[in-house]
Amino acid sequence: MPIPPCKALVFDVFGTVVDWRTCVMNEARDLAGRQGSRVAWGEFADAWRRQGYLAPIGEIVAGRRPYCDVEQLLDATLEELLVLHGIALDRSEVERLARVWRRLEPWPEVPEGLERLRRDYVIAPLSNGSFALLTEMAKRADLRWDCVISTELFETYKPDPRTYLGAARLLDVAPSELMLVAAHTADLRAAAGCGLRTAYVPRPLEWGPDAPAPDEPDPLFDVVAADFGALVRQLTPAATRGRT
Amino acid sequence: MPIPPCKALVFDVFGTVVDWRTCVMNEARDLAGRQGSRVAWGEFADAWRRQGYLAPIGEIVAGRRPYCDVEQLLDATLEELLVLHGIALDRSEVERLARVWRRLEPWPEVPEGLERLRRDYVIAPLSNGSFALLTEMAKRADLRWDCVISTELFETYKPDPRTYLGAARLLDVAPSELMLVAAHTADLRAAAGCGLRTAYVPRPLEWGPDAPAPDEPDPLFDVVAADFGALVRQLTPAATRGRT
Repeated sequence: MPIPPCKALVFDVFGTVVDWRTCVMNEARDLAGRQGSRVAWGEFADAWRRQGYLAPIGEIVAGRRPYCDVEQLLDATLEELLVLHGIALDRSEVERLARVWRRLEPWPEVPEGLERLRRDYVIAPLSNGSFALLTEMAKRADLRWDCVISTELFETYKPDPRTYLGAARLLDVAPSELMLVAAHTADLRAAAGCGLRTAYVPRPLEWGPDAPAPDEPDPLFDVVAADFGALVRQLTPAATRGRT
Repeated sequence: MPIPPCKALVFDVFGTVVDWRTCVMNEARDLAGRQGSRVAWGEFADAWRRQGYLAPIGEIVAGRRPYCDVEQLLDATLEELLVLHGIALDRSEVERLARVWRRLEPWPEVPEGLERLRRDYVIAPLSNGSFALLTEMAKRADLRWDCVISTELFETYKPDPRTYLGAARLLDVAPSELMLVAAHTADLRAAAGCGLRTAYVPRPLEWGPDAPAPDEPDPLFDVVAADFGALVRQLTPAATRGRT
């Protein structure tokens, strides 16, 4: 597979860069576990992401709901889930748990992979997480982006085409000089539809060990890689790869 | 002077973080010097900044001219200055010189100062330079911002209040939790007018060794520091200052 000549790489974050499920599950269990011993915390995390993030964002991109800050969406669903599970936290505990999305940690091979890719490309997140969320997450997790791009800057969410084209415009590159790295085929297809290059990094553990397997790669994707180490091997010259 | 309790620091860039005059002067002289031996390159740099940047941006903020990308403004003035001085460069040379603003280098004490401040604060540029310009400059100069904030994100320029308030909103902090660090008193007064904290770092050499002295500090500024080393001493706890 030939390597497409790109100048910049933008990365989906939740699922692609960070393991949101394990982090959310662990923090929720540690904080609320004493009151909800029968709660399945993995399913709690899944429900929070589905109902507080994927569903409302889908409605917003489809034009059926006005734009709203992603953390407000997540906050509202957290309140509902806590009531549903009969978990009574005090205000500061709720606020702490609500911000767990700023404290997510990367998959193990990500920091080294990003550090290597940063030598050859401009690298940035392109995420539906808010600008402040992505900034705080990167600082805590010591991920060195060249800049932070949130779909908040375009007042919409992926997969709205304005997000991919907006990222290219901000980075002053043509869409064909920009590659999206993502674990989600719908995100990649939408980016390809805007003329971006695409790298698919499936994450079989994103939804936990019992989840269905990730989608098969679409033949239109430029690169398919099992993790960021494999991505480095496909996107960087062999001669310089060892020097990290 | 008590240290105001801030969460984030945003930095003016041209003049405050980088020594634009020396860099522009040297690159212009190296590239075009063979054709314009009588050109005073420091004055060439000054004229480029005044006519291609300060003047049109002032017009835009005053509402007398529509918003326009800063690099387009600089490009147009460069063409005029080259004609004025009878310097004939080929297209690739003009393009290279036009992008010198992406290759500016920091004042000597800046990298160490930023690295130290980054341990206690979220740090970002807040500059009239474009998003791509600031991103490329930081990557080349190895300046590690937590994120990049360009006034391009607000489709206006400093000192428009929307830029200072927009930065606070993106970082999810109150204006009073944000401090602007700048070498220019007008920039700082406008930020203070929006409720931001202010740190004045005068740069007597910004316009060269023969320029008039910088403005006196305004009593409303929270911090006045001779350079980023002095800024670190005022904004970070003494106990941890040595650990860089």
